[in-house]
Amino acid sequence: MSRSIRLAVIPGDGIGQEVVAQGLKVLTSVLPQDVKLETQEYDLGAKRWHETGDTLPDAELESLKQHDALLLGAIGDPSVPSGVLERGLLLKLRFAFDHYVNLRPSKLFPNTSTPLAGRPDIDFVVVREGTEGPYTGNGGSLRTGTPAEVATEVSVNTAYGVERVVRDAYERANARPRKKLTLVHKNNVLVYAGHMWKNIFDKVGQEYPEVTTDYLHVDAATIFFVTQPERFDVIVTDNLFGDILTDLAAAVTGGIGLAASGNINPSGEFPSMFEPVHGSAPDIAGTGKADPTATILSVSLLLRHLGYETEAVRIEEAVAADLEARDGSARTTDEIGDALAARVAG
Amino acid sequence: MSRSIRLAVIPGDGIGQEVVAQGLKVLTSVLPQDVKLETQEYDLGAKRWHETGDTLPDAELESLKQHDALLLGAIGDPSVPSGVLERGLLLKLRFAFDHYVNLRPSKLFPNTSTPLAGRPDIDFVVVREGTEGPYTGNGGSLRTGTPAEVATEVSVNTAYGVERVVRDAYERANARPRKKLTLVHKNNVLVYAGHMWKNIFDKVGQEYPEVTTDYLHVDAATIFFVTQPERFDVIVTDNLFGDILTDLAAAVTGGIGLAASGNINPSGEFPSMFEPVHGSAPDIAGTGKADPTATILSVSLLLRHLGYETEAVRIEEAVAADLEARDGSARTTDEIGDALAARVAG
Ligand SMILES: CC(C)[C@H](C(=O)O)[C@@H](O)C(=O)O
Ligand SMILES: CC(C)[C@H](C(=O)O)[C@@H](O)C(=O)O
Repeated sequence: MSRSIRLAVIPGDGIGQEVVAQGLKVLTSVLPQDVKLETQEYDLGAKRWHETGDTLPDAELESLKQHDALLLGAIGDPSVPSGVLERGLLLKLRFAFDHYVNLRPSKLFPNTSTPLAGRPDIDFVVVREGTEGPYTGNGGSLRTGTPAEVATEVSVNTAYGVERVVRDAYERANARPRKKLTLVHKNNVLVYAGHMWKNIFDKVGQEYPEVTTDYLHVDAATIFFVTQPERFDVIVTDNLFGDILTDLAAAVTGGIGLAASGNINPSGEFPSMFEPVHGSAPDIAGTGKADPTATILSVSLLLRHLGYETEAVRIEEAVAADLEARDGSARTTDEIGDALAARVAG
Repeated sequence: MSRSIRLAVIPGDGIGQEVVAQGLKVLTSVLPQDVKLETQEYDLGAKRWHETGDTLPDAELESLKQHDALLLGAIGDPSVPSGVLERGLLLKLRFAFDHYVNLRPSKLFPNTSTPLAGRPDIDFVVVREGTEGPYTGNGGSLRTGTPAEVATEVSVNTAYGVERVVRDAYERANARPRKKLTLVHKNNVLVYAGHMWKNIFDKVGQEYPEVTTDYLHVDAATIFFVTQPERFDVIVTDNLFGDILTDLAAAVTGGIGLAASGNINPSGEFPSMFEPVHGSAPDIAGTGKADPTATILSVSLLLRHLGYETEAVRIEEAVAADLEARDGSARTTDEIGDALAARVAG
């Protein structure tokens, strides 16, 4: 049997290049010899935009589609107006490839720092909806720049879109030992979207009698993230609430340097995309200070998605062991990548 | 000179009644003898809704308007569908009385518990916009309850509404020793509203050359709330982000039992309303376990708003001293109220 992975690589901006290099290093190291890895790099991001005005041309979108998965570093640079690359590249990919499950695990590894006293036991997964909500780009501005300006943002939510992500979250909860699923929304204020989410959540839940369910308003959820994070197992929530909660989750579980994510198209119609939760951190780009662990854990999610479960676990275990073995001395991006590549090597 | 305060009191649901009673106790105790306090209680909330179907009838809204200020306990009960009382009563008041400054101070008092390790020095104020954004009730649902349902929520933002709250925040920042103002939004995704906020923030900032400014995306802001809360002085943000951030702020500064708020109409055209950030907590209602401190600190905000600065400070100092003196033994709602009433008594 001969296997292959066709991987599209988008290093992007800032530290993206550096962390992606380490992700590929570990990927190469962990893959069995019979798996052929074909990577194709795409030059997208701030530099490209400055040179050509392009964020993501159709031809490249078509070409990206031909891959089994995408690995993305980070997108965004202060020299580009806010929103141009986010909407024109990152969100365009998530929407075009119907990445409706934005998967963000949070785990407090041993020997990592958390701002929380008492080191609670944190191990949950946020299933963030990825293709709807306030992220659709619906809205507009009238009389822009004048004292009479009106600007709107429309959160668009469909039963179609909510049901599929809620179902995915139930499946994930059902497969975990604690079998607990929490819906986070704000249905006492956002009554139209919130009630639809809640009704669908309750309806789909009837098919998963073993899953314990729970509902929290997003404001209350942030309280529990810092006072009782151990209460969470799987969380399902909308695109914007998921964005906010997963940064907070990263902050309480060892920091944004460890937070991995997968933008998943579960049907497999389009390639899924894996990326660290952190941004391009232009202030430390090129200094060797970026922690590539989030990207390397994203590679683990990528492998799991493509069916390489053993290899996915091997990376997770290597990261846990690596963090455990840390002695507090600073390591460069490259050194961390090397250490993990060595640990996962067969 | 004879002075008077006409105060409308809305105890509301759950622990609302109990905490408001303590708030009034402390208010009575702190006020100089020459100030005549006239209170009028309004029976609004879950019980009223069950009995009559009313949330806030026009006649009562008119009557409430005749007061100098409103003191509210808490609104909401699980027996009422989510949103009915929130939209029909609490938000109706905030919108009808044009409470565009939703003021929420966060301070970590000595000898209070925080989930954060290392006890950072926290003392900031969130100025949350209170009359626009995703809270306007714009939106709707089509084909409700069917697999073809579409539900929208429209965030409405006006230059008029943003400029006045941003200006208020600059004034507050300018009056504080650190003179620092942070705008929190998500202008890399919510580009219409986000850019308007940012442009107005920058424009108004030119009138306050001594105020240092800063911008953070809401997701990143949650990280700093737990890793570096001491970086904040005054924060200005939209209605929904403010809702989320102030619960998180309460969680890291001694808990929701201490978080006070003022819904302020700075022009004085309508009465302002003061309320604890916490909800009605039906699970502990009637047990004497509710901490009335958040309500009592809201009374302090009320006094400051009405020009009783000395008395406002006296309450804050009493709370600080009371927390400092705690020996860890549990106290009832009443005992805390008594202790604070005694401390503020002239
Ligand atoms: C960069 C930005 C558009 C993005 C988001 O808001 O989704 C990021 O914050 C994330 O969480 O992946
Ligand atoms: C009860 C709810 C409508 C309210 C809000 O969202 O504003 C509350 O959470 C608050 O923060 O005062």
